[in-house]
Amino acid sequence: MSLAHIRIVLVETSHPGNIGAVARAMKNMGLSALHLVQPKEFPHADATARASGADDVLEHAFVHDTLQQAVADCGVVIGTTARQRHIRFTPYEPRDCAAYAIAMAQQANQVAVVFGNERVGLQNGELALCTGLVTIPTSDSYSSLNIAMAVQIIAYELLLTARTAASRVTGAEPLATADELQYFYQHLQTLLEGTSFRDHTDSGHLMTRVRRIFNRAELDQNEMRILRGILSALQDKRSRFHSDNS
Amino acid sequence: MSLAHIRIVLVETSHPGNIGAVARAMKNMGLSALHLVQPKEFPHADATARASGADDVLEHAFVHDTLQQAVADCGVVIGTTARQRHIRFTPYEPRDCAAYAIAMAQQANQVAVVFGNERVGLQNGELALCTGLVTIPTSDSYSSLNIAMAVQIIAYELLLTARTAASRVTGAEPLATADELQYFYQHLQTLLEGTSFRDHTDSGHLMTRVRRIFNRAELDQNEMRILRGILSALQDKRSRFHSDNS
Repeated sequence: MSLAHIRIVLVETSHPGNIGAVARAMKNMGLSALHLVQPKEFPHADATARASGADDVLEHAFVHDTLQQAVADCGVVIGTTARQRHIRFTPYEPRDCAAYAIAMAQQANQVAVVFGNERVGLQNGELALCTGLVTIPTSDSYSSLNIAMAVQIIAYELLLTARTAASRVTGAEPLATADELQYFYQHLQTLLEGTSFRDHTDSGHLMTRVRRIFNRAELDQNEMRILRGILSALQDKRSRFHSDNS
Repeated sequence: MSLAHIRIVLVETSHPGNIGAVARAMKNMGLSALHLVQPKEFPHADATARASGADDVLEHAFVHDTLQQAVADCGVVIGTTARQRHIRFTPYEPRDCAAYAIAMAQQANQVAVVFGNERVGLQNGELALCTGLVTIPTSDSYSSLNIAMAVQIIAYELLLTARTAASRVTGAEPLATADELQYFYQHLQTLLEGTSFRDHTDSGHLMTRVRRIFNRAELDQNEMRILRGILSALQDKRSRFHSDNS
């Protein structure tokens, strides 16, 4: 079942009651993998109370120190955002997001849907790990959805799609995981550090934009190996060049 | 805006916190008309707390003694049910329900979506007032949705449909309202009482089935006048017949 490859990730959730409500919303829609990144209070009686019959989802929840850890093995990382951020992602609507997520899950990719802190949402560092975004449509006059409600809507769309999706497994190469992308960026940065390429922005903004390009590209494992090979080849050339001049 | 013609009706809600969460879910999706039938505790601090920025929806909520009152002026009354009841309704899925509700609202019908008590759902007497049903798909292993979550999903589908629906106003005759249907059933019952037609079931079950037939029929105001005219004509004939034999 494709839903088994899809996890819900909650980042720095403030209210344990919300974690419980998320667990119930997930189980109602056939999702079971809950990952928590630095929850403020967990486990907690409020979480258990609101989970109702879904306490098994809470019991099996994973707790992580960083979002990177929570999505390390994921080829698709979709961040939820209410705000229109001026970045080079066009956010999915939930229905399209579900179609994409289920299709990727059917190709044996691990998929994460990530929800930020209740008050501030996902921060730039967290968004930089996302390969896509989803925005839930709301009334213009009141767009602040409760986090468990947001999970409920996404999970509902995932169930609808999973239920009807024909087996569309195409034997496609699995996508590069978040960890593999991370190694790639580190590799690229290391390579660039010895060159005249400089990030003239204050806060590594240029590198953030570079990351977004590759995040968007949906690199598969094969393409990732090719890119890493290119970086290695460039590195060797630079090493030789340096040696030649030493 | 068609959403203005759509109300959410909560019947005998036990937990005031749920009422607040419903208000927030509604406002997030552009709904504002909340009707409460014998809420256990309302107003209540828990409701206000969970409503967050949607306390205006709570302030303007209507409180009724009966479901009949809450839907009196509604031409479309859609009951939410998790259970598969063996009745002659095929429940809508939320998406189809939204398409139907928005289309009816665009034809100036008042539309109600009714949610039963958290523990027991809508009872037979309440279902008898419904002109249609909707069931939210869930996992087979855990189908018990929190009431506010159920409202959130329905409201989300309503917003999606309202947002994209072209103006499909056809100048169709408005549907008969719940009150008009009620008068019709009373008229029919009065007429039948003097006849050899007998409800041999224990609990008025036969009349319930008769109601369901007409509930399903989506009678418009014109058709309702015709049916009432038929009943009146039959009544006159019976009166004359009785007079002739007296």
